[in-house]
Parts: sequence; C-alpha cells; structure tokens
Amino acid sequence: MAIVDITVIPVGTATPSVSGYVAEIHKFLKGYEGKIKYELTPMSTLIEGDLKELLEIVQQLHELPFQKGAQRVCTNIRIDDRRDKENTMERKLKAVENKL
Amino acid sequence: MAIVDITVIPVGTATPSVSGYVAEIHKFLKGYEGKIKYELTPMSTLIEGDLKELLEIVQQLHELPFQKGAQRVCTNIRIDDRRDKENTMERKLKAVENKL
Amino acid sequence: MAIVDITVIPVGTATPSVSGYVAEIHKFLKGYEGKIKYELTPMSTLIEGDLKELLEIVQQLHELPFQKGAQRVCTNIRIDDRRDKENTMERKLKAVENKL
Amino acid sequence: MAIVDITVIPVGTATPSVSGYVAEIHKFLKGYEGKIKYELTPMSTLIEGDLKELLEIVQQLHELPFQKGAQRVCTNIRIDDRRDKENTMERKLKAVENKL
Repeated sequence: MAIVDITVIPVGTATPSVSGYVAEIHKFLKGYEGKIKYELTPMSTLIEGDLKELLEIVQQLHELPFQKGAQRVCTNIRIDDRRDKENTMERKLKAVENKL
Repeated sequence: MAIVDITVIPVGTATPSVSGYVAEIHKFLKGYEGKIKYELTPMSTLIEGDLKELLEIVQQLHELPFQKGAQRVCTNIRIDDRRDKENTMERKLKAVENKL
Repeated sequence: MAIVDITVIPVGTATPSVSGYVAEIHKFLKGYEGKIKYELTPMSTLIEGDLKELLEIVQQLHELPFQKGAQRVCTNIRIDDRRDKENTMERKLKAVENKL
Repeated sequence: MAIVDITVIPVGTATPSVSGYVAEIHKFLKGYEGKIKYELTPMSTLIEGDLKELLEIVQQLHELPFQKGAQRVCTNIRIDDRRDKENTMERKLKAVENKL
C-alpha cells in the first residue's frame, strides 16, 4: 500500500485558475471508488492504493489538462511507500495525533 | 497570502517512522496560532500566511529533526501564491467543490 | 516526449548517505540506454523519453532501495510535458541560455 | 552548507514557454556570484550555500514572475541539508560517480 500526493499544473492557460482542472481530476477518480481511497486537500490530491495502479492513475490525471486544451503540464508527485507497517492515510494521521 | 505545503524527511535515522518528527512540527506550529493557519494531512503540513513569515517558519521546521539528532534532512516545499484573488485554503477547496 | 526529475529517498537506513542508492539507479538506467536519455545532477536524476515508459522506469527505480533492505522509500517526481514544441533537455537549456 | 533545487512556475501566462522566466532567475543569481554556487539544469536551478541566505534568495526568485506580470506562481523546492559531512554539489556527484 503506497500513498501518492499529486499536483497537476497546466502551464500557459489563459487564467491563473486551476480549480476546473482539479475538479476534472476528482470526477475522474470517482470512477476508481472502491479500488483506491483519495482525498482533496487545499494543495493537492492524495491517493492511497497499490503503487502500480496509482502510477497508472497518475498518468491519466496528468493527461486531463491536455484534453481540456492545455499545451504544457507540470505534474509534481510525492510517493510515500512503507513496507514494515500498514501504510494508510488513516494510520499515518493517527500516528502523529497520538504524539500531540 | 500564500500557502506552503511542506514535508520534512530525516535521512539516516534508525527507524522508518517519522511521526515523531511530524508531531514536533505541529507542537512548534502551535506557537504561531493566530498568525497563520495550518493543517496536517496524511502526506504533509499545509501552512497559510504571509510568504516571508512562512519561509522563516519553513527554516525552523527544517531544523527540528537536527535538534532530535538527525544528521541529514531533505525538505520538500510547494508554494502556491496567487495575487489576483484571495488565496486561502478554504477558498481553494470551495472553488473545486463547487465544480463537482 | 516528457522529462522526469526524480529523487528516491530511503527512510530509516541508519546512515545519512544515499550515494549508494543513487549509484544503483544509474546502473539500472544503463540498461535503457538508446531508449531514453538520462542525466545525474547533484540533486536528482533527469530522464527524457516517452511518458508511459518513464513512469514504468520510475516504479522500478522506486523499488531499488527496497531490494537493498530499505523499509520505507519517499520518492519525489517532477514531470515536465510540453506538446506544442519538441520538449527535450537540450532544447530547454538552449532556450534559457539564448536569453542570458 | 545546504543545496536547494528550485522550479518557479508562473500559472495563467497565455503561452507555455517559461524560458524567459528562468533566464530572469539566472540574471538575478549573477548578482550573488561569489556568495553562492548555482547551476542550471533542464528541469530546475540548483543553488548551494548557507540555508538562511538560500531561503531569502528563494523568496526573491519566487517574486520575479510577478514582476513580469504573472498573477499566480507555483514554486517547488527541494532542500538537501547534511551536517555530518561537507555537503557540496561537487562532493555529492563524486560520491555517486565513484560507485559506478
């Protein structure tokens, strides 16, 4: 189980707004409900699941702005992949909160 | 108003666990309540405020693992800084949710 | 043609040194010579090629520290994918240098 | 001694080209020659020096696209800060190359 944290930034669009592109990402992810867990944050989208599947999803999310006419996309991805423990978003939050 | 998304990763620590370091970050940020807004996510910490102040905070957060004995720290920072509109975490989330 | 900029950080590896892991990445990439272009920088590895293939390579690079005993790996990836022009590392450098 | 790896991406700038913005960054950095070392790569700019000074430089680099009319800037920063050894760009490259 790995967790991906992704931002997809179209470059050279007419306005500074990207919320429409982010909304497309979340409409797309709806189709994966049950297979992955995902969460919208103010700065990115977090996706939890099998890494191979996550990277396939990452490629499709990266493509979405091109489908809306973008000519350049800069995608930024963090992967956290821990194998000595169950590495879920829920467990990671609890591990910090229990120490506060 | 800018938003910073930060991960602070100690390298060469005895165990793969970093929750203790993340908890130190949030104990530290408590001292800035009222000046900044901040949020813990499963993958990073989001901080909203004046960019100059945010970068000063970033440097201090980056130092925390060294104070706990780390010898190397890799810090990763995303900055989103929008000046044609009020750029808060709350407004960014709403802008996406309204399009879903 | 896309360009990926990747860092692969093992977490909890007893020593702060990661050069051995980075060397493994470059030994691995040797096997792809002719299909992709890649470059070692002081902060990451840059790889130029077809994005689908690059993401398959990214997953294999991410796995390498686990094969050397790491229990947790944090991988950070930037993708620059431009489709209105030939997007090579060489062209990008020249585009900047011509403006200096 | 720390090393920063920075990309500064203007969002909503009508054309996908960013080489003009990157050139501005390198013109700006010329003014710091002797105090810091810096290097242009096809994907980012690497800067080596005292971390406090590097973060002050980061803020100024982040501002440059706004001075050219951008309304939104997404800046991405990696910091590598190692304190058990001299952490220079040159030494890091050699440490990997010696293991190839």
